[in-house]
This record gives sequence, structure tokens and C-alpha cells, in this order.
Amino acid sequence: MSLVVTGIGELFTSDPQTGILHDAAVVVEGDRIAWVGPSSRAPAADSRLDAEGAAVLPGFVDSHAHLVFAGDRAAEFGARMAGEPYTGGGIRTTMAATRAASDEELRRNARRLVGEALRQGTTTIEIKSGYGLNVPDEARSVRLAAELTAETTFLGAHVVPADYAGRADDYVDLVRGEMLEAVVPWAKWVDVFCERGAFDGDQARAILTAGAERGLGLRLHANQLGPGPGVRLAVELGAASADHCTHLDDADVAALAGSDTVATLLPGAEFSTRSPYPDARRLLDAGATVALATDCNPGSSYTSSMPFCVALAVREMRMTPAEAVVAATAGGAAALRRTDLGVIRPGARADLIVLDAPSHLHLAYRPGVPLIRTVLHDGVLQ
Amino acid sequence: MSLVVTGIGELFTSDPQTGILHDAAVVVEGDRIAWVGPSSRAPAADSRLDAEGAAVLPGFVDSHAHLVFAGDRAAEFGARMAGEPYTGGGIRTTMAATRAASDEELRRNARRLVGEALRQGTTTIEIKSGYGLNVPDEARSVRLAAELTAETTFLGAHVVPADYAGRADDYVDLVRGEMLEAVVPWAKWVDVFCERGAFDGDQARAILTAGAERGLGLRLHANQLGPGPGVRLAVELGAASADHCTHLDDADVAALAGSDTVATLLPGAEFSTRSPYPDARRLLDAGATVALATDCNPGSSYTSSMPFCVALAVREMRMTPAEAVVAATAGGAAALRRTDLGVIRPGARADLIVLDAPSHLHLAYRPGVPLIRTVLHDGVLQ
Repeated sequence: MSLVVTGIGELFTSDPQTGILHDAAVVVEGDRIAWVGPSSRAPAADSRLDAEGAAVLPGFVDSHAHLVFAGDRAAEFGARMAGEPYTGGGIRTTMAATRAASDEELRRNARRLVGEALRQGTTTIEIKSGYGLNVPDEARSVRLAAELTAETTFLGAHVVPADYAGRADDYVDLVRGEMLEAVVPWAKWVDVFCERGAFDGDQARAILTAGAERGLGLRLHANQLGPGPGVRLAVELGAASADHCTHLDDADVAALAGSDTVATLLPGAEFSTRSPYPDARRLLDAGATVALATDCNPGSSYTSSMPFCVALAVREMRMTPAEAVVAATAGGAAALRRTDLGVIRPGARADLIVLDAPSHLHLAYRPGVPLIRTVLHDGVLQ
Repeated sequence: MSLVVTGIGELFTSDPQTGILHDAAVVVEGDRIAWVGPSSRAPAADSRLDAEGAAVLPGFVDSHAHLVFAGDRAAEFGARMAGEPYTGGGIRTTMAATRAASDEELRRNARRLVGEALRQGTTTIEIKSGYGLNVPDEARSVRLAAELTAETTFLGAHVVPADYAGRADDYVDLVRGEMLEAVVPWAKWVDVFCERGAFDGDQARAILTAGAERGLGLRLHANQLGPGPGVRLAVELGAASADHCTHLDDADVAALAGSDTVATLLPGAEFSTRSPYPDARRLLDAGATVALATDCNPGSSYTSSMPFCVALAVREMRMTPAEAVVAATAGGAAALRRTDLGVIRPGARADLIVLDAPSHLHLAYRPGVPLIRTVLHDGVLQ
């Protein structure tokens, strides 16, 4: 089956070779993009979708989300907005609810969020474990994530659970040993929350190294709440992404710029913890690859909206709208080391969104407004 | 026809007498609320809507929107995000496009935005003129607004048009004379943009006084871009609302707190012009009535999303989620001097929204996510 999308007022390809085309068309064959070019030269296809002058973008690639959990922490959020600081301690609250939930409850909640994200244009989403924090619950978290995405991440090292208080190194040994073995059948990536109060640089190195030995790709929560060794460790170990990057020094920025480790910025977390935003301009100007993602989780950033993150990136991090859209599409794909996603070009996956707007600018210009009119995922209209 | 809404996990009434009820039900008869109480004691009705544990709120009352215009100013927005300041000068760009548009184009654009707002839970919206800026185009703007809402506002004094450059007082005479006469059949309110670069205190007074003599209610754009006489003038003249209130001194705050002039805050404008937010806490703590509205317009705040404004109010203006929801419902109603809107109580209009969430907190806790599941407007499911 082939489909031609015609009447595209602005085709934002996220492909640096092509940039933005006007009066364009895209032909999809099966789950792949087959042709991109001017509307007037579009080949025939089995069916046709008229974009009626709207903007068409690649589907968003949300490369950082924590969707396997139970419960919510709305009350904690309310208290934080009234002045309590965010420390990450609430992770243990979600851990208790997650352990107590059935597979079906966890599956239903994660599916709800994936569907909500898809309606907002997210066609690829990474999903982390990290609220099980014991062998069976981490294993089932990654297994449930694998039902919903190919981009599964083992985050057993999210926080040290209470039963290992004072024995963090024993927990690290569990994570890189028995727990890692238990999740390997379903995990593509391994991640660590490298932060004061969570895991230090040596612990993160031990876990990431063990994961790499078992064939997992590396990613790292780094430099969110304060400066630390995370970003440089991510670069040293060749991680696909260092996530958060809120507190960076010059050496951190230089390390990212000189590597193919993506700086994944998560402004929803700064919004929802009322924290200062990362300095995206400094990273971009230094030449680092930047991704935007939601960090969707019930504690520090319970948004599933990539358009909201794009608007924040422009307002708060001084990215241009085009830079923000590239970061939310091709940037996310780079953070997942995927070359078949996040761009509109022949051979890429047929993940497209049609906006209720004539330009990508409107994602920042019209903040909060649901602007995703149509989503095409793997060539299928959603 | 009557309808009972059952299974309401949280009924956020915005009524200070009732507050928040749990496990509640609401009965609607025709376009009015007939009964509010515990689910277990709900009377029978012709039909039933099960909220399935979700939160139910009054429909949002957006008391400040500029929806009669043509064109957009996405490029100006992009330039501003790259560093150019907001001065209000772009109003003239929209004026030219609006004058050139047909009635049908203006009607279609305004309808699109009213529909978009309704899907986001806005069941009452005020609509201003202000992009015609001559007698025939202001008259048709207010006439077209009246097709869509009862809350129509004449804003001929939005900015001095180019053909009156250097003759601002002549333009003021036109506005309070011939133009006012032309709009009176359709206008409920008169408004002035009282700001350096637009209209000063004496000019605003002259226009508002003339409007009051012709039976219009008063509202005022005041103290948005800098300090000025607007807020105190609004209070002195008994205006229903002083809108923006970004730059206030102690006397301004005291004047608002000692009056029934509502302080209408428009954080979408600060978001989209990258400006400092108004100090909502200071106003609330002083005892002023606060409303939240979108300021939806193609220049400085092209959002139609009241949930987005609620999230901003919590993040950026330190309102609690409950204060923000009250401001977006009962506050907006007060800014329109309506006692039949913005609350859930017997006798009020049957404007209700069912969230895709168990609590009003989620409007701030889940920023950017479309959380409006169902809208009941004048008793009719949308």
C-alpha cells in the first residue's frame, strides 16, 4: 500500500540536507518514506492525504520517559509548588506503588501514556524501568516496557531502595549482577541516575560497564540537580546520551561537543520542579548535538507533551523554533542512535505529523494548544 | 431534559461555600445546574454521564481574548524569541490584514479559535475588537464578535492607527464619538489599551467615560509593559477588570484590594513575550480578586488554552493549583460581572468539564497535556 501526502504548506524534514520545503509532497510505501519532493511532481499512490496547506513534521522521538509505574504524586507536586524542594526522594513512593501493582495495572497505565503521547505526535518513545528496584520488579518493568517500544532502558540504578540504606555498594553489586542478568532479555539500554543522593561516578561506571559487557547501549542521567562527574563519564564511556545537563562546566560542554554523546534536555523537569533551565544555547553554540525529551514520570515531570517541551525550549532555553523541532525529532533519534527515525527522507520510517497550523513555528507560537491534527505511525494513520 | 453526572471523584465547585466535594454528583436541567451533592443521594434524571472517578470543574471563563483578526504573526514571534523586544507595534500589521479580510474570513478564523478553546474547556469567552481601528471595521468586528459570544468588547482604543499618527487626540475623539455610536448595538464592554505608546490616562478616561454614558461596562488594559495610571483609573471608574497588572506599585495593589475591580492576569502574554510575570501572590495576599485569561491574540499571546494558563500561574506566579482554577473560572466570571458562570451550584449555567485526571491538581501537574475529556456547555455535551 502506498500513500501520498499532498498540499504540505511547509515540510519540515529535520534533515540538514533538505531543510524546509514548501508546497511539498511525501510518498509513503508500507512503513517507509519512499519519496519527498515538490507537490507538483508527486507520483501517484494508492491513497491520498491532503494536508490542506498545513505543516508536516517527522513524528516526535521522545528519548527519555519513565512510564512503568503505578500511582501519581499530585500531592507532592502541590507541596513542591508551595515551596518544598525537589530531591528525588519521592521515587521511593512510586516504587512502593509499583511493586504493589499487578502487571495489568502497570501495562494499562503505560499504555495510556503511550497513547496520550501518540495523540500529541510522539511516534517513538523510550521507556525506562526504575520503580521496581528489586530483581523481579525491575525484570517485569523492562518486560512490560518491551511490549510497548523497542527502546527499553534498564534503570535499576534510579535510587538506592530503603532496604539497602547504608549499603549502596551492595545494591550496585545487585544491579550490575543478578538484576542485570534478569533484564537483559528485554533491555536495549542501561541507564544510571548519577547524582548526589543517588549514585556517584564510580558506582555509575561500574553499572554502565557491566551493562556494556552484556551488550546494552549506555545512557546516563547526569548533572541534573548539581555539578558532577556524570556528563564526562557518559562521554568517556561512549554513551548515546547524557540526560538533563542542567549544571555544566566548560569541560562538560567541551566533552559533549567533541563527542557523539547527545545532550538530552528535559525542560519539563525544570518546569515542574521550578528549577533553572539548562543552557541550550551554550551547548548548541559549542557544537553539541541536543535532543529534547519529556522525562515523563509521576514525580518531577508528568508531561507527555513534546509540543510543550518545544515551547519551553524556545521560551526558556533560547533555542529557535527550528532548533527545538530538530532536537525533538532528529535529536531524539540521535540520542537513541537511530538513523531511521526523526527525519523525513526516503528510507526513513513513515512517522509523520500534520499540524493544525501552517508552520513549525506555531508549536512555540501557540503554546499549550493541541496542534497535532493527524499522526502517521509506521505508515498507518492513527 | 435532565442529566445526572455521577462518579465524580473530585468536584471542584469554585464556590467558596462548597469548595471541593468527593464522590459527588451533579444534576443538570436544561441549561442550568439543578442539584449538587453526594453521589449516593443523586436524584434520577433522563440521562446519565459517568465521570468514572475523574475530576469535574466549572467550564473555564476566558475573560480576555482578541479573536476578530486575520493573518498571523509567527515570523514576528520568531524574531522576538531571537531577542527583539515586544512593543505592541505589530498590532498595526494585524490591523492591515483584518481590514483587508472579508466578513467570512474573519468569522471563520474567530469560530476556529472559539472551537479550539471550547475543546480545551472554555465555555465562556470574551471577544474584543481592536484590529479594525476605523469606524466600519470596528463596527463589523464587534458585530462578528456578537455572533459568537454575549461578552463583546469594543477596543477601538487598542493603538493609534498610522493614519492618525501625531493626532492621537483626534483619534480619541473618533473612538468616543462616531466609532462608539457605531458599535453600541453589539458591544457590552468598552476597553482601552492604557500604556506608554498607546493611550495615556486622560485619553483612557475620556473613552471609558463616554462608553459608560452609552451604557457599556468598563475594562482596561493596564500596567502591562510598565507602571502607569491604568490600574488606579480602572478602580476609580468602577471597571469590572484591570487586565495584565504586571507592573504594580503598592497603591495599585491597595486600590485593587479595596475595590470590586478584578485583577485579570494573562501569563500567556508574559510567556510569549519573554517578560517577567505579574506578582499574583501579592495581589491574592492583599485580598484582590484575581482572574486568569488567555489574552489570545496573534501578536503577544497566541494561546487559547486555559489549562496552559493555569499551569503557568502555578509555576510562574506561585498561585496554588486551587487558586489558579478558581481564577480561571469564578475569577473570570467576576471579571465579567457574571454570577451565573464559573461555579458549580444550583442555578448556575450548566457549563462543566470532565478531566482525564482524578484531580484539578493535574492541570498544573501535567502541563501541556490535553486533559479535557468531556465538555458540557449550556447543558449540552460538546
